[in-house]
Amino acid sequence: MTRRVAVIGGGSSGLACIKCCLDEGLEPVCFESSNDIGGLWRFKENPESDRASIYHSVIINTSKEMMCYSDYPIPAHFPNFMHNTLIMDYYRMYADHFKLIQHIRFNTKVSQVKQRSDFSRSGQWDVETENSDGKKEKHIFDAVMICIGHHCQPNMPLHDFPGINTFTGKYFHSRDYKTPEEWRDKKVVVIGIGNSGGDIAVELSRVTKQLYLSTRRGAWVLNRVGNSGVPIDLSFNRFTGFLRRNLPFGFFCSLAEKRLDQRFDHALYNLKPKHRLFSQHPTVNDELPNRILSGTVQVKPNIRRFQGSSVEFDDGSVVEDVDLVVFATGYRFSFPFLASQVLSVTENKASLYKYVFPPELDQPTLSIIGLVQPLGAIMPISEMQARWATRVFKGCIKLPSVAAMLKDIQYKQETMARRYVTSQRHTIQVDYVDYMDEIAEMVGVRPNVFKLLLTDPRIGLSVVFGPSTPYQYRLGGPGKWAGARQAILTQWERMAKPMQTRPCEVEPKRSSTSSVTAL
Amino acid sequence: MTRRVAVIGGGSSGLACIKCCLDEGLEPVCFESSNDIGGLWRFKENPESDRASIYHSVIINTSKEMMCYSDYPIPAHFPNFMHNTLIMDYYRMYADHFKLIQHIRFNTKVSQVKQRSDFSRSGQWDVETENSDGKKEKHIFDAVMICIGHHCQPNMPLHDFPGINTFTGKYFHSRDYKTPEEWRDKKVVVIGIGNSGGDIAVELSRVTKQLYLSTRRGAWVLNRVGNSGVPIDLSFNRFTGFLRRNLPFGFFCSLAEKRLDQRFDHALYNLKPKHRLFSQHPTVNDELPNRILSGTVQVKPNIRRFQGSSVEFDDGSVVEDVDLVVFATGYRFSFPFLASQVLSVTENKASLYKYVFPPELDQPTLSIIGLVQPLGAIMPISEMQARWATRVFKGCIKLPSVAAMLKDIQYKQETMARRYVTSQRHTIQVDYVDYMDEIAEMVGVRPNVFKLLLTDPRIGLSVVFGPSTPYQYRLGGPGKWAGARQAILTQWERMAKPMQTRPCEVEPKRSSTSSVTAL
Repeated sequence: MTRRVAVIGGGSSGLACIKCCLDEGLEPVCFESSNDIGGLWRFKENPESDRASIYHSVIINTSKEMMCYSDYPIPAHFPNFMHNTLIMDYYRMYADHFKLIQHIRFNTKVSQVKQRSDFSRSGQWDVETENSDGKKEKHIFDAVMICIGHHCQPNMPLHDFPGINTFTGKYFHSRDYKTPEEWRDKKVVVIGIGNSGGDIAVELSRVTKQLYLSTRRGAWVLNRVGNSGVPIDLSFNRFTGFLRRNLPFGFFCSLAEKRLDQRFDHALYNLKPKHRLFSQHPTVNDELPNRILSGTVQVKPNIRRFQGSSVEFDDGSVVEDVDLVVFATGYRFSFPFLASQVLSVTENKASLYKYVFPPELDQPTLSIIGLVQPLGAIMPISEMQARWATRVFKGCIKLPSVAAMLKDIQYKQETMARRYVTSQRHTIQVDYVDYMDEIAEMVGVRPNVFKLLLTDPRIGLSVVFGPSTPYQYRLGGPGKWAGARQAILTQWERMAKPMQTRPCEVEPKRSSTSSVTAL
Repeated sequence: MTRRVAVIGGGSSGLACIKCCLDEGLEPVCFESSNDIGGLWRFKENPESDRASIYHSVIINTSKEMMCYSDYPIPAHFPNFMHNTLIMDYYRMYADHFKLIQHIRFNTKVSQVKQRSDFSRSGQWDVETENSDGKKEKHIFDAVMICIGHHCQPNMPLHDFPGINTFTGKYFHSRDYKTPEEWRDKKVVVIGIGNSGGDIAVELSRVTKQLYLSTRRGAWVLNRVGNSGVPIDLSFNRFTGFLRRNLPFGFFCSLAEKRLDQRFDHALYNLKPKHRLFSQHPTVNDELPNRILSGTVQVKPNIRRFQGSSVEFDDGSVVEDVDLVVFATGYRFSFPFLASQVLSVTENKASLYKYVFPPELDQPTLSIIGLVQPLGAIMPISEMQARWATRVFKGCIKLPSVAAMLKDIQYKQETMARRYVTSQRHTIQVDYVDYMDEIAEMVGVRPNVFKLLLTDPRIGLSVVFGPSTPYQYRLGGPGKWAGARQAILTQWERMAKPMQTRPCEVEPKRSSTSSVTAL
């Protein structure tokens, strides 16, 4: 039986893996190349190579009730959208509570993960590590969980920008952006309207002389502050998921796009893309409309070329004396420590069964955790994947045949290709509830809606019409948590709690604190 | 006949006064104590005494089509909500176009304005000035227009804050706030949720360790970005004004409050005041909900007392180690160069006929311009007041009897007392359209809605259901401007123009660019 599991990376996915290994009676050893947990979410003034790096002000765009680990709710007084420092606080609490730290070897980088010669029988792996003193070690593991995320190498397609070599201003990737002050009264172009691009553009626009936000395709922009001020992701639930799956795609998109256009008409703001809302990973940005209306952010098309200090855009307009260009052009992922016959990545595409298992290994003892980009929070997904993987390692769950897995992979790729804009960004997209349910089904923890409606209607209604909070996957089955029911019943209270800092003699409307809120 | 007019102050009201004097064939001499035009809107790193001072990032909260002078639209490519530097650009263009600068004496402070001994017959004034070299001069004027605004002395009610003398942190009035960087990772309390308080809290919250926003009463918060992304003030029109006047006050407030609560439930956010939406000068802040939901701004009640570095609030909660307290507690106005028998100010109340004329002078040759706080833009109001005042000076318009004027003043004070929360902030409140129409009626330039609907229905409909842009008051009567009709017909184009910086092949919805948008 599988016993020792290597967990590569001590970020949000790695922590969940250690915890799930312990829950399943496995022995995790986590290798973390830096000196602390948190991965992406730990702010560092100076970025390290092959790691994402965040800017000082980053606030997560999924709300606390949706992003927490399923058996460890975020404290009631924590705000709904947490600053990166608070996310770190939560991770530390989680790691302390479940005693995870003792399983982590810090300052230890994994240099190679290789099948042992008897792999087809043992399923074991040779893992080679090197610590910060240069000391190398070899280990044998019964299974490996790779938790390095998908924000690895900065993607900086300079060859797509003619004349960049003549550019006399400064340029860097969004990962190298930290704070705005240095760019006061300068002219800055930000390339890309993803979440980093939007955030950085808005932040810089408060100090720059002028900020230009260049976007090839435009974007649909969501707000963290949803209807009635409730976190927007609390309105993604099983009911809206059901509508999305059963209404014609274009019609469902139109409904939601209409709501977004009520906030600001994307055409009037010249942001409206040709593609539909759910054909692109959404950009979440609460302040962009205001910055555009005040002209401090000017939306521009794609860049045609650079020449000296000037930037020419596709519409022929030219901006002179540009001081800085920020490439908010995303990241690529790769697994340099894995042989390509184990798992190859081309153009950000990896062939993985449900984004977790390489399908053609003789033994299912290698899993990639957190390699998804959900419309929702990634932490509970990583946790669910880890619950699945650990039980697969133990043999409690069998994977389907190679053919069936390959067929599923192909089906997912085709579905994604039909729905999404072709882009490196859209190779690992998943819908939060659908994907969670899919994995939960295999783990045996998918909530049985009909049974719940009959036996525990309060919870049943909450599971159908309420937000799809992760606690739902701890109501029963392997890994059942006794606190799950109560956590669901109190989720709206925890949402409201952090704002109760001033006595207000008026009750909030029922609608904002306890019932359905559509997108 | 009145010929020479002293204009005191070269800000937005002063410029309008010079222009209106010239239009009426009068000879204006404007005294400006600083070395430039723009008043409040000119950013200065170091505040001067008895003048308001803005912070670096200030963006106006009225949109360009609503805030412009009535015969000089803001250029199409200017953004809808302008940064203070752009407002200055517009003032300079206005001053250049109408050749106003030559009538301004910079660096010249008015030290006294006194009735001449023959005032009851001549209506003349002795005006004493002192320039920056200390040189004093005496002048005789036929009329005086006072344009010093109502943001004069910072209001800092320290006596309401027990223990402030023991406070070990720094504290200052909002006028002394310039940029946030100095307060990175500090704890800051902002007192007051008016427009300055809200703006400064939001801006500081991006760098501080924690920002507390203390408010006694709470507030209704409006957004610059209105329905469909159209500037919100473009939805205040004659039709909504009609509804406000004719529906029960509470019912009309409820309608509008419901709309505001759809954006964020003011009770959930613990900001909901006991008073109604239209009983307080509104706070305009697009980013506050997001900052509260992310916990970076924490709303607190009133401060009970200071002790050392700690601040205790009315609910008993205490924040320790506070580094800075910003008193965003507004301004008081006064007219130190005027004898109190001419015009006295007590608790921000001055007895003025329609906020312009002291009612009991023998001759109506003194006017206060811009001493109103509208729910809307102040510049067109100052301009309308100036059109009225100059024609009163010339004798083209007669003021009513002293008794009638006093009765009107009393009526206005009573109406205000009934509607508004009792506060120094609410002594000069006016509703934009109502007040403009009231003054325009006396000048003879109030648009005749019924006649317009019959003779020029396109304009008529725009005047009733479209935004009450200032051009409407140049369609006919004294000061008629030939470009007014065209300016009205093209106002939506000018709104959309600044955002057309990226070719977007989709047309904006008709509703956002050409027709009615309710609050």
